[in-house]
Amino acid sequence: MKTRLYTKQDIQQILGKVGLDSFMDQAIESLYLACREYKQNRYEAPVRDGFEYKLPELGLTEWMPIHAIGNLVTLKVVGYHPSNPLQRYLPSVLSCVFQLDTSSGQLVNIMDCTFTTSIRTGAASAVASRILSKEDPKVLGIIGCGAQAITQLHALSRLFRFDEILVHDTNLECASTFQQRAETLRMDRSLIRITSLNELSRKADILCTTTSVDIGQGPVFNDLNLKPDLHINAVGSDFPGKIEVPRSVLLRSLVCPDFALQAKHEGECQQLNENQIGPDLVSLVQQSDKYQGYKNLITVFDSTGWALEDHVMANLVSHYGQQFGLGEDIELNCVSDDPKNPYGFLLHQSPAGSKPVLQPEKRLSTG
Amino acid sequence: MKTRLYTKQDIQQILGKVGLDSFMDQAIESLYLACREYKQNRYEAPVRDGFEYKLPELGLTEWMPIHAIGNLVTLKVVGYHPSNPLQRYLPSVLSCVFQLDTSSGQLVNIMDCTFTTSIRTGAASAVASRILSKEDPKVLGIIGCGAQAITQLHALSRLFRFDEILVHDTNLECASTFQQRAETLRMDRSLIRITSLNELSRKADILCTTTSVDIGQGPVFNDLNLKPDLHINAVGSDFPGKIEVPRSVLLRSLVCPDFALQAKHEGECQQLNENQIGPDLVSLVQQSDKYQGYKNLITVFDSTGWALEDHVMANLVSHYGQQFGLGEDIELNCVSDDPKNPYGFLLHQSPAGSKPVLQPEKRLSTG
Repeated sequence: MKTRLYTKQDIQQILGKVGLDSFMDQAIESLYLACREYKQNRYEAPVRDGFEYKLPELGLTEWMPIHAIGNLVTLKVVGYHPSNPLQRYLPSVLSCVFQLDTSSGQLVNIMDCTFTTSIRTGAASAVASRILSKEDPKVLGIIGCGAQAITQLHALSRLFRFDEILVHDTNLECASTFQQRAETLRMDRSLIRITSLNELSRKADILCTTTSVDIGQGPVFNDLNLKPDLHINAVGSDFPGKIEVPRSVLLRSLVCPDFALQAKHEGECQQLNENQIGPDLVSLVQQSDKYQGYKNLITVFDSTGWALEDHVMANLVSHYGQQFGLGEDIELNCVSDDPKNPYGFLLHQSPAGSKPVLQPEKRLSTG
Repeated sequence: MKTRLYTKQDIQQILGKVGLDSFMDQAIESLYLACREYKQNRYEAPVRDGFEYKLPELGLTEWMPIHAIGNLVTLKVVGYHPSNPLQRYLPSVLSCVFQLDTSSGQLVNIMDCTFTTSIRTGAASAVASRILSKEDPKVLGIIGCGAQAITQLHALSRLFRFDEILVHDTNLECASTFQQRAETLRMDRSLIRITSLNELSRKADILCTTTSVDIGQGPVFNDLNLKPDLHINAVGSDFPGKIEVPRSVLLRSLVCPDFALQAKHEGECQQLNENQIGPDLVSLVQQSDKYQGYKNLITVFDSTGWALEDHVMANLVSHYGQQFGLGEDIELNCVSDDPKNPYGFLLHQSPAGSKPVLQPEKRLSTG
């Protein structure tokens, strides 16, 4: 009974062998295929649930389960602690993922999900943008230059050849370090330019919003001189009351949520009525011909983060782990050959007659 | 950023050092103290949730979260797969537990929970029995001789000196191996006797029901000649429609659930109206004086399994792990010193100028 453990070092090695670009390409392709093959009766994915608290720090611990029927349960556990970057040099969002085999209930995989969450968030925007963006977009605009901005840039750059990447952040220090961080991607940094919100939103063919705007403080740009065929990836809103895109833009756009139930609760779709919400990501992929015409109109991908995306990423890491023989098998569950004896694992099972591990400190007297 | 991993071998070593009896004593004491100190505003524990399925096997995957406010979230993940014993020589219930620090969201502990679930289920019955059982009970009756029966016997034997242990199981093979399994406890096996339901329920001072009776097939004993001061630990019912104790017994008993909300849904309390349910385990412990009189009457502890119990056990394992320097620190989360760069962990951070782990297979051209 083994559980496969992938540590940070294993993920580093997988990425070293696959290459970051190839990994992103595979993430985009795997997510696209998962959406194309998705059938409602093959998965169960309830809306995430969790604990919100103010002590010892403002924070949130959530679990996002998904059941691939007949196969696996993938459970992502996420912590959101906004004080992390300043107080601990840690990302505000940390997560891990656990996969269980539904034939036996065994925990089969344990791995980080912080990195793959970034990757899948980029990949989801890429899948949506491939269908909804104009052909050959040349200008990418990014509002909010934190961690998510990097993977949006990465994923979209794998699909499109941008002439210009315009970025903006209300935090100047964050904007000014963006070029340097983008160098991890070996991009030509001269393509990246910090600019005003007005220039950015006027020039962008694709606009990604990846801000940490406060509740009630959105939207993060104005509905002014936008291109008529702009595609927006709205990535930042993930909480009731948190929005990034002006409602007037949404009202004249095709708005596609990743997971409608959740997007209505915490995404841009909060601003809309049921009948103003367009197809979800799965419908978009499965009926992409039907939405061809929208390439020439304003479109919005409302990305709140969906458990299916994390499931696909965990499978991808596990696939590469197996291919390269990375990860470590650990024996986690305290079970023995006799399922009726909860203490059986404390006895040496072989060779016969050997001493038990366990030597209780005194003999029980019950008589 | 480290996560402490406790494998089966670590738990074996902890038990080897502490002793199984001492560990059970500590489990009983820790659970008792946790109940005594419990305040509703210091914990959040929603009813467990999960997926039920029929493919590839009949089964259930559940998560049981509890939030110790200001400190930890403990998340237990449980699989229930009744085909495990026959098909895989595994217990039908397997579980693991994950603990997260609520100041940062870091996963701090990973460990098995299969063994500690057995222990805490025994310990919970011991805590309830200490308050509700007659003084000096001499005959323990156990109906259902599977894994849970062993820890009921163990826990109760740590509190009371029984003259006789009467056991019954509809599966004769299960009953006949019970003595042998009980030898793990170094008990005098001559005290244990297989007998009829009638003799068992007539003679028992404490009766534990630990069956896997099917839905709709309970109760598992008759309301016939029970002692007037019998205490029952009803452990088996954990599913809507699954019950073990005759309703007529419940109606003239003080019925104490571990976690009322859950017991009403899937425990013996299913058979009762709200006003027929007595104090829960916490109230029982906190107001034990008030319930002294019930030692001479029939009482029922309705044990469905509560996340607080698992939280206490995880803390106990972690306490001993730290004391003995057992467990292994692993680096799970893929993070770097720069929380704004999700790819930072792929670069060697030091010494300066060293080569990145990551060598993408081709240079990105975006211009």
